[in-house]
Amino acid sequence: MNYRMIKRTLGWILLFEALFFVVPVITAICFREWRELWHILLAMSACGVLGWICAFVGKVENKSLYAKEGIVIVASSWIVISLFGALPFCTSGWIPNYIDALFETVSGFTTTGASILDGATIDKFPKCLLMWRGFTHWVGGMGVLVFLMAFLNLSGGRNINLLKAESPGPSVSKLVPKVRSTAGILYIIYAALTVLMFVMLVLGGDPKMDVFDSVTTAFATAGTGGFTNHSDGFSGYTSYSQIVVTVFMVLFSINFASYFFILRGRFKEAFNTEVRVFLGIVVAAILLITINLQLTSGYTYTTGEALKHSAFSVASLISTTGFATEDFNLWPAFAKTILMLVMFVGACAGSTGGGIKVSRVVILFKGATHEMKRMLHPNQVKKISMDKKVVEHEVVRGVNAYIGAYILIFILSLLLVSFDCADLVTDFTAVSATFNNIGPGLGLVGPSGNFAFYSWWTKLVFIFDMLAGRLEIFPMLLLFAPATWRK
Amino acid sequence: MNYRMIKRTLGWILLFEALFFVVPVITAICFREWRELWHILLAMSACGVLGWICAFVGKVENKSLYAKEGIVIVASSWIVISLFGALPFCTSGWIPNYIDALFETVSGFTTTGASILDGATIDKFPKCLLMWRGFTHWVGGMGVLVFLMAFLNLSGGRNINLLKAESPGPSVSKLVPKVRSTAGILYIIYAALTVLMFVMLVLGGDPKMDVFDSVTTAFATAGTGGFTNHSDGFSGYTSYSQIVVTVFMVLFSINFASYFFILRGRFKEAFNTEVRVFLGIVVAAILLITINLQLTSGYTYTTGEALKHSAFSVASLISTTGFATEDFNLWPAFAKTILMLVMFVGACAGSTGGGIKVSRVVILFKGATHEMKRMLHPNQVKKISMDKKVVEHEVVRGVNAYIGAYILIFILSLLLVSFDCADLVTDFTAVSATFNNIGPGLGLVGPSGNFAFYSWWTKLVFIFDMLAGRLEIFPMLLLFAPATWRK
Repeated sequence: MNYRMIKRTLGWILLFEALFFVVPVITAICFREWRELWHILLAMSACGVLGWICAFVGKVENKSLYAKEGIVIVASSWIVISLFGALPFCTSGWIPNYIDALFETVSGFTTTGASILDGATIDKFPKCLLMWRGFTHWVGGMGVLVFLMAFLNLSGGRNINLLKAESPGPSVSKLVPKVRSTAGILYIIYAALTVLMFVMLVLGGDPKMDVFDSVTTAFATAGTGGFTNHSDGFSGYTSYSQIVVTVFMVLFSINFASYFFILRGRFKEAFNTEVRVFLGIVVAAILLITINLQLTSGYTYTTGEALKHSAFSVASLISTTGFATEDFNLWPAFAKTILMLVMFVGACAGSTGGGIKVSRVVILFKGATHEMKRMLHPNQVKKISMDKKVVEHEVVRGVNAYIGAYILIFILSLLLVSFDCADLVTDFTAVSATFNNIGPGLGLVGPSGNFAFYSWWTKLVFIFDMLAGRLEIFPMLLLFAPATWRK
Repeated sequence: MNYRMIKRTLGWILLFEALFFVVPVITAICFREWRELWHILLAMSACGVLGWICAFVGKVENKSLYAKEGIVIVASSWIVISLFGALPFCTSGWIPNYIDALFETVSGFTTTGASILDGATIDKFPKCLLMWRGFTHWVGGMGVLVFLMAFLNLSGGRNINLLKAESPGPSVSKLVPKVRSTAGILYIIYAALTVLMFVMLVLGGDPKMDVFDSVTTAFATAGTGGFTNHSDGFSGYTSYSQIVVTVFMVLFSINFASYFFILRGRFKEAFNTEVRVFLGIVVAAILLITINLQLTSGYTYTTGEALKHSAFSVASLISTTGFATEDFNLWPAFAKTILMLVMFVGACAGSTGGGIKVSRVVILFKGATHEMKRMLHPNQVKKISMDKKVVEHEVVRGVNAYIGAYILIFILSLLLVSFDCADLVTDFTAVSATFNNIGPGLGLVGPSGNFAFYSWWTKLVFIFDMLAGRLEIFPMLLLFAPATWRK
């Protein structure tokens, strides 16, 4: 294990975090929140000093990073950035319990959007801390290390290991020969879409969607996070704002490589199987829920309203953002079942969304139908293919291993969480919502509830689940596996 | 597709079903239930006549059965035997709706034990029909075709395809070179264990456990079914009877090959990985629930009672029997979560129990840890092994395909069932309980409830799920796949 190189990379991560704190610092100055400003500056200096020591003190002769180091760096980066990111919430006294502050920060960076704050607290929360909360979504969305790589040449050419470990989805392909340039291109697309969304929100003339709200909403949507600045979530905004957010939640759930291909005019590659299946699921789910809401007695939505709320909820849950215009907890069982299913499926690989990912689901089902064909014709051996390319055996095996690990972590979390004795629906959806990086669940943790009532050690389980969900399980598991640290 | 051979085999199945009806006929005579006797004799003659026509009219020149025919025969046998088995319930007027009668019969043959009868009806149900209900468990437990094979030489040597399709678990091995002898040995072990259990129940001196109850209980336990003759389930019997049932539920969940190996003195093969993991899960689950019941306030069990009820419930759910001494619906969340988990894991492959099967779970997790090792050391290629044997690539792929199909069917069923607008817990556990062949779920379908309130087309979904669960999904899926019927 190349400890020096790990230390140095973590140092760089902390230096970048100090830089990220500039955003809430500017907000604090704009809104004259002087008390909070000092606490943010304190956290910023802590990151800066410690980061400088780790990055520049001591010599690093061996710069090579192997798969092992890549995994350790990715997992520990996310833990370190969260530990320091939680400081201003805690020291400023707005979230006095450090575990709660850490929960909120991890929920931010992992783009989960689950909160321990109740509605009353959110409504009087200082702007600079709301901005920091929203900005953590944006930073975490595309990935901390991807950001690092876009600016630094960390280790001669071996960056692909880091990119692989941090990027969501079963396989990562470089858009251009250089990993560093790929990271840069992804971040440029990401930033451009965020700015576009911000502009569209500001231009909407929504009286409640001021410049501040537009910025944090754009951050939270881009990262498919889910934090909002108001206790009533998104129900207080105009239909225009809600529709803009719906569209962008879908856009940020699509593989960013697709936008690169569209810009290059390679439409066939842009609309590959995964994107088509994803869009198909979105449309089908929206229509089914709309029809369900229209046909079930007791719901007074007009068709337009039903369509709007259905589209917003589906986009919010499949993108694993977690915004809400309506309390879908109160919807009929069929609608709730569909929402629960899309939240497990999740977004496309290579997007900022969470969940199991559409491509994994496709590969899983292709595996099942492939096996059925083999049962009928045992002597014909064919391979699984997608987009006219053979799906490599390694990818299929990786998907299956992922599903196995996913089920294992899900079960263990459910068991640990159930000690707190909430009801089964609350526990089940709380684990799903954190592990899939969504935010709200159903029952007590529904859109109008929060996670505050859980005990501190259950919150630690959720913190682990959020990190494991964002990093696709294996880095977090391997960080705690003795085999990783053995020589 | 060799239609003549399929027709002939189905004929034999019907002839055997006519033979099976002898059991309720004798019961009806013993208890002087003359009215029901005529209805059973009617169903018996229908099976006999139709079976004779299919089996003996027309010549069969080509006796070969390939994988395709094997799958079609297995799936259609189970449908046919259920369609005719439901007749006496329906014509006698005790379950006037044919879909309900079919649900009850499929629930019997698939050893699910889910019922549409309410407590009051069960308590006054005629003995001969209770006996038939219990006997369907016993017939379905080991498999209808396995029974057939033990007596008939269906097709020159190709019976292994039938055995494979009907036997639970990822891989079937012949105990002795001949398939027919293997089927015979399995049935002898099965019958011997059932008789042993019957004798132990009768000897217990339980005033409520008379000879009739002992027979049906032994049938239902052997098949890991779950039908009971009383509205209060198993709470009315003495502790002795409850403990005997607990032990035999565990015994019938173990691979029957293990008993063959024990008789031959091959203990190492008898206690293979799957059996050890299974017993480990059982012991751990019992202890955890006992401790949970003791430490949670509001439950007044003594330690002995807690242990007894915990052991009974764990054995009942992991074996997918579905008996209940206590309404575990009212237990704390942690205990309920454990019970829900063991019911998904299910029994050992090659037993009469349902669920995903322990060996599949083991292979799934071995796959995940294997992948993690590869992430740390990408250049070391090892294979997954179990019991010091390499797990063949085909088996791993089959397990993964099974899990994929399992999730797909589960999701589709959940969606279809949720139209009936019960609550999420009821719907979710109703699908789990039928698909895993358990019986009762939680909520409205808990141990003190039943499935009667669901609409008739939801019951058809459950009927499909029970058959798919018993036959391990693929035969039922393939029966309805156009590819199976294409030339």
